[in-house]
Amino acid sequence: MKQDLDALMTERQLDALMVVKEGHDPNMPISYLTGGASLGRALLIKRRGSDPVLICGAFEREEAAKCGLETHIFGEFDPAGIREAAKDDPVKMQALLWHRLFDEYGVTGCVGFYGSSNPAQSFHVLTMLTQMRGDFEVAIEPDTDIFLAAARTKDADELARLIDVGRRTSAVVGETLDFLKGHAVKNQTLTWADGAPLCIGDVKRFVRARLLEHDLEDSEGMIFAQGASAGVPHSAGEDGDPVRLGAPIVFDLFPREIGGGYFHDMTRTWCLGHAPDAVQEAYEHVMEAFNAVRPAFKVGAKCAAYQEMVCDVFERHGHQTIRQDETILEGYIHSLGHGIGLNIHEAPRFSHRAPDDIIEIGNVFTVEPGLYYPDRGFGVRIEDSVYVDADGAVKSLTDFPKDLVIPVS
Amino acid sequence: MKQDLDALMTERQLDALMVVKEGHDPNMPISYLTGGASLGRALLIKRRGSDPVLICGAFEREEAAKCGLETHIFGEFDPAGIREAAKDDPVKMQALLWHRLFDEYGVTGCVGFYGSSNPAQSFHVLTMLTQMRGDFEVAIEPDTDIFLAAARTKDADELARLIDVGRRTSAVVGETLDFLKGHAVKNQTLTWADGAPLCIGDVKRFVRARLLEHDLEDSEGMIFAQGASAGVPHSAGEDGDPVRLGAPIVFDLFPREIGGGYFHDMTRTWCLGHAPDAVQEAYEHVMEAFNAVRPAFKVGAKCAAYQEMVCDVFERHGHQTIRQDETILEGYIHSLGHGIGLNIHEAPRFSHRAPDDIIEIGNVFTVEPGLYYPDRGFGVRIEDSVYVDADGAVKSLTDFPKDLVIPVS
Repeated sequence: MKQDLDALMTERQLDALMVVKEGHDPNMPISYLTGGASLGRALLIKRRGSDPVLICGAFEREEAAKCGLETHIFGEFDPAGIREAAKDDPVKMQALLWHRLFDEYGVTGCVGFYGSSNPAQSFHVLTMLTQMRGDFEVAIEPDTDIFLAAARTKDADELARLIDVGRRTSAVVGETLDFLKGHAVKNQTLTWADGAPLCIGDVKRFVRARLLEHDLEDSEGMIFAQGASAGVPHSAGEDGDPVRLGAPIVFDLFPREIGGGYFHDMTRTWCLGHAPDAVQEAYEHVMEAFNAVRPAFKVGAKCAAYQEMVCDVFERHGHQTIRQDETILEGYIHSLGHGIGLNIHEAPRFSHRAPDDIIEIGNVFTVEPGLYYPDRGFGVRIEDSVYVDADGAVKSLTDFPKDLVIPVS
Repeated sequence: MKQDLDALMTERQLDALMVVKEGHDPNMPISYLTGGASLGRALLIKRRGSDPVLICGAFEREEAAKCGLETHIFGEFDPAGIREAAKDDPVKMQALLWHRLFDEYGVTGCVGFYGSSNPAQSFHVLTMLTQMRGDFEVAIEPDTDIFLAAARTKDADELARLIDVGRRTSAVVGETLDFLKGHAVKNQTLTWADGAPLCIGDVKRFVRARLLEHDLEDSEGMIFAQGASAGVPHSAGEDGDPVRLGAPIVFDLFPREIGGGYFHDMTRTWCLGHAPDAVQEAYEHVMEAFNAVRPAFKVGAKCAAYQEMVCDVFERHGHQTIRQDETILEGYIHSLGHGIGLNIHEAPRFSHRAPDDIIEIGNVFTVEPGLYYPDRGFGVRIEDSVYVDADGAVKSLTDFPKDLVIPVS
């Protein structure tokens, strides 16, 4: 949780955190600490034991002030003098600004840097800054950086938002199913009233509009993939393909609150009208895996153990799994789940690559077993997101039936 | 234009380009070269004189293949061996992968790095990579990096898309105006049929839905700012504020094609019912500035000269301008315009900070004079986007009236 940041800084021996934000895309460390101010270029500095300080452009001072943090504008730090001293060299300009800010806010010691920036610019600026001042070093952090480590457990306000986003996302999936069922069938495809085929692009357009009605946005690009395309986990689906009966549709929806906020993540696999035997069988194996782990989640247990359980189920039914061979493209080829929050991928991870991750109170994560056979023309994935409540009970954020076969008329 | 990349590499003495993409947010250099493939983590390498090579995750191989570039998956480059050699150290893992890729694709000499990445990771990886191999250096590029330099001029396909996005954005602004006019007035505010006030958040929701109908998305967060808030250029507006008569509304809409594509950018300032004298006067000065530069744009002219013209107009009317003092927060406080494309801010820039930018055939840019008086409770900005056609004629992409006062009933 956010209030763990100082303790995590001590644990990681970090004396200060510096977060950079360059574009308008909501950038997790900044939005985590500001509560979602709509900012362009901005910096945030936090020393251990002190509140964060936000620095933004003069045009965004009103947006920034809403977040309640101590806020300054870049103009307070002598940009004209810096520009002149740097002779407009962008590397030197940034290094001189940061030099000045480090002085102003007493940044020394082991400093973590977060956010996203051009790699060459970062390399040159931090090299120059290291040469300019001997009183700090650039921290090396693991993949799960301090913000992701803090966000591993959600506080009550965050949980309330995640519950609500889950409810709204589930509603959109229901509306989408009704939309599909409301179309007539001709030649084994869904059609519009004028007889033209209903295409995947039409469905996605409907889904986006429904999301918007629920104040959600499809910022990462939903998956509505059919047939062989459903057999490749991240294939988004072909907009021009008509929606067909009998072909498995993997519908993976992971919207967030509008303007950059909390995500939900859920997947259903549907066969309209009827399911081929192979798909029906794969679906049953996926549900068996889902039902094996779902009641078994326990606070304190290793996340990777659940990936093992799922691999056990799939291997018993003769499917290849990623546990046997990391390079396979058929069978069970990914991890069981991941945390969600202000990012679509957070900690904990349910993977043998994250052997130390354990389930904790306040975790919010996906459960998403799947089987993929692109060469046989199908894939199946079922995914709910769940949270661990204050009593350690694991509750679902996703409220929608998991049926494979959808009757159409 | 894209086909200028090799020439620009020669001019900038760049031997190779390396683009990193970490999240799903469309990242300009990658989408520029792939035509908009929906990818998560990816790398793109281009040597001077060779076609780019794209490297992505196995799950996204189908999405990547659509773009027609030579495509490989990370799995081809011995991730297990790299992980073992790096003992899971993320810096060493990335450095070893890049080391391997540099060997594979003959990357040496002066190498430019693009895209967005964690600053500390970039610093440590490039420091390590520099130590591992003595045959390359990290290029230092100006703010207008090689991709922005190439994108400064658009080709015919890009122009066609930009024209269409402009047409659709203008349509949404028209629909928004009709939406506002369709509401009854009570106590000098717009109201819903049930008498509740129409709020700015309601208008934004309407706009987002209309954008979606036109296959556009509000990825950067529109501005619909009223009264004093309109006096701060990037204030987005307060969702909970009722829409009032007589208060200037700055409506700045800058959507892009859904899924990451070309932007449009336009602004209108509206006073519903009636305009206060001070706002009317400021509006007339803004229009005078707009009309002074609009017919004067000429291929080969310095962009900064138009900023000078606008400052001349405003100063003649007694307004302070940024030319006189960069730190002012009232008067004319920003530059006249900027290029648009796959980014909302591109070259050329119409600012004294970009003294070398000139108008060229293929440019697409905004024209957006404005006056800001937050302490007097208003701001006014009028903005069209324009392009320079093959004959050097400057044509508008924005097709919408610029009236200030909007009659309401």
